[in-house]
Amino acid sequence: MTAQSDRSKIRRLPDRGSYDQATIYDILDEALICHVGFVDDAGLPVVIPTIHARVGNVLYLHGSPASRMLRSLRAGRQVSVAATILDGLVLAKSQFHHSMNYRSVVVFGSAREVKDEDEKALAFQAIVEHLVPGRSEGSRPANDKETKATAVAAIDIEEASAKQRSGPPVDDDADIELPYWAGVIPLTLAPGEPESTGTVSPPDHVGEWKSRR
Amino acid sequence: MTAQSDRSKIRRLPDRGSYDQATIYDILDEALICHVGFVDDAGLPVVIPTIHARVGNVLYLHGSPASRMLRSLRAGRQVSVAATILDGLVLAKSQFHHSMNYRSVVVFGSAREVKDEDEKALAFQAIVEHLVPGRSEGSRPANDKETKATAVAAIDIEEASAKQRSGPPVDDDADIELPYWAGVIPLTLAPGEPESTGTVSPPDHVGEWKSRR
Repeated sequence: MTAQSDRSKIRRLPDRGSYDQATIYDILDEALICHVGFVDDAGLPVVIPTIHARVGNVLYLHGSPASRMLRSLRAGRQVSVAATILDGLVLAKSQFHHSMNYRSVVVFGSAREVKDEDEKALAFQAIVEHLVPGRSEGSRPANDKETKATAVAAIDIEEASAKQRSGPPVDDDADIELPYWAGVIPLTLAPGEPESTGTVSPPDHVGEWKSRR
Repeated sequence: MTAQSDRSKIRRLPDRGSYDQATIYDILDEALICHVGFVDDAGLPVVIPTIHARVGNVLYLHGSPASRMLRSLRAGRQVSVAATILDGLVLAKSQFHHSMNYRSVVVFGSAREVKDEDEKALAFQAIVEHLVPGRSEGSRPANDKETKATAVAAIDIEEASAKQRSGPPVDDDADIELPYWAGVIPLTLAPGEPESTGTVSPPDHVGEWKSRR
């Protein structure tokens, strides 16, 4: 990951921005999904949600070899990947200062198709562990047929920036005495009770699943 | 919103796809944020998370006039907007059949800058109400200076598709007897206790906030 060019420079509210690698990796690791943007053959933008996993400075995506996203990423195309975690609704006395608490990352990089079977297996394990730590040992790994039927793209992270906001709303002094409520409604992606299919009881990695933060 | 072209055609798992307008609008309305993709001046894709609101067949986005996103959308550029709601982790006995329960929409359209002050006011109200129903009456609307300091983009939804998955994992028959747990961990974006700034008690629209579904 190199220093940022103009492409990933944070222009707005730079105090909310960061190029710190650990911060960027933490957000990528906590976000369950990302949104991948690429330019299609007609030159038009396309954004697709998908599951990802990070291994070192590489993001792995996977899917059907027939999917538009995987077909496009095969070609070594440039991509932008955003991962966003919502932490709260920030309600100020003025609508102008309403905001959200969040942590987000925008990555720029180029994609390559992963053909090596060992790297594919590594990507599969990373994706399963990314969603549910411990799950890779609690399920059957992909066999040869399944591995062949799954396309994997690797995105080398060339540039990335993080942006985050936390804390209470910040109103203008002139608004402080207005009779409106101001504050934060915290938000968490919360797990419900596991719903079993079959008779096996939920193992620890399922019963104890929680958002990673 | 017109019939889909090749651009928005759902190729993979078409049984999970839909072009139903009510379904598409419901998902856009429930998702608190979206991810906007556009092609920058260098021809490269950029994806940015942002708050949106839908009014009829138009998506409104807003931000600083200096932000890259708003500067880009001013120019009438083509955009792709994705909104995704996570409903659960789907854990099968085989890693191959792991999945997520989700509802997502991908929109294609062209952006225009909103300059008319009445339309800007309508967009601001829609955005505030989108995040917290009832909030537009519980806060101070934007004054002239704030309105001038906020850029608004309107995206006319030209094409859109929805994709969703729900229900338990579906394993191959050969895997049903494996000793692994299979099932769903439901996920909800859940509000915590409101954190007040100042002495006003949380009104109903704050205390009763919940994800819209």
